[in-house]
Amino acid sequence: MKVDVKTHVLENNRTQANMLREKFQDILVVNMTGSPGAGKTTVLEQVIPDLHKEYSIAVIEGDVQTSRDAERIADLGVEAVQINTMGGCHLDAKMVAGCIDDLGKLPDILFIENIGNLVCPAEYDLGEDFKVTVLSVPEGEDKPLKYPGMFRNSKAVIINKVDLLPHMDYDIEKVEDEIKGIQPHIEIFRIGKNTRESSALLADWLAACLKKKRA
Amino acid sequence: MKVDVKTHVLENNRTQANMLREKFQDILVVNMTGSPGAGKTTVLEQVIPDLHKEYSIAVIEGDVQTSRDAERIADLGVEAVQINTMGGCHLDAKMVAGCIDDLGKLPDILFIENIGNLVCPAEYDLGEDFKVTVLSVPEGEDKPLKYPGMFRNSKAVIINKVDLLPHMDYDIEKVEDEIKGIQPHIEIFRIGKNTRESSALLADWLAACLKKKRA
Repeated sequence: MKVDVKTHVLENNRTQANMLREKFQDILVVNMTGSPGAGKTTVLEQVIPDLHKEYSIAVIEGDVQTSRDAERIADLGVEAVQINTMGGCHLDAKMVAGCIDDLGKLPDILFIENIGNLVCPAEYDLGEDFKVTVLSVPEGEDKPLKYPGMFRNSKAVIINKVDLLPHMDYDIEKVEDEIKGIQPHIEIFRIGKNTRESSALLADWLAACLKKKRA
Repeated sequence: MKVDVKTHVLENNRTQANMLREKFQDILVVNMTGSPGAGKTTVLEQVIPDLHKEYSIAVIEGDVQTSRDAERIADLGVEAVQINTMGGCHLDAKMVAGCIDDLGKLPDILFIENIGNLVCPAEYDLGEDFKVTVLSVPEGEDKPLKYPGMFRNSKAVIINKVDLLPHMDYDIEKVEDEIKGIQPHIEIFRIGKNTRESSALLADWLAACLKKKRA
């Protein structure tokens, strides 16, 4: 019975997501997922200034409560809309549809920062082009094998906080191999406090995805 | 409609949890929650050897997939049972009821390590005496205010990985104040790689909770 309810909820969500995808056919939409504290907002703060030189950017910030992240994004000079789920553990397509009009004109690139959660957001399509999952070094090496659904459903993974590698027992090559075992064609970016070059690579890759979509 | 379904699910869960609580009336049951990678299993590895000198201990390990954590716990010489939710984002009382018989005789102290998730497990009663939430320094300062439900429903918080404090911008007093703002009577323990004394305090506190329950 419980499973039937869930299937029904997911089907409704997919219908709504496909309607969004039609609206989004000329822009790039990235659904950012990851554990609480993996650094989703921080990665956006690193990559948006590069992209914003050439493209219009907007961010939908999902949080259980508070508008701290939306404020951090607004400080970058790009449009930010906050969704508070008030206890909900993931965003769904209806929540996104409900705030698209608040954005005004659609940007070239729309980031949707999901709730910090490696489980539930994996199953909810938000009309995005793809998911990017942020995984951080201090979470430990075992996360890809323990939460494979999220990695199977992502087009790219960011291994974040690599500046902490010297202080931790973490075999990053092994983690990358395990991620590729789940999803062989996934893109992996290593990002940390002082990895300007690497966050620029991520910005380039996102710009290339947009160009490819518009080609 | 969705809310009604959820209320119904939570009510059924509470009935099942209350049945468990009757079974558990002479033992201490602790529901361990926290983000993926916060260090729930590591805290158990630190605290169980101390408690095991005087008490029988068992652990129910919840994971989306893999039995890595149950193997780590079994290495400590205590009973460990694995629940794999295969995609599910929290344990519920029915899952716990389904594996209680695998434990054989009930232990003095039963730890239930929940799925790594700061949202959904907050709402599901597993028949426990209380929840203990593990929060780790590298997750960042903003977690209590962003996920208040989990802190409101916990009797204790462990701030874990305090050995990383010198390498991060993290005001631990501020975080503790914010946790107490949500739940003034909460117990807070600071634990890290080399904080033997502090994990012993946690073991003492748990032993005292058991004695108080049995008094």
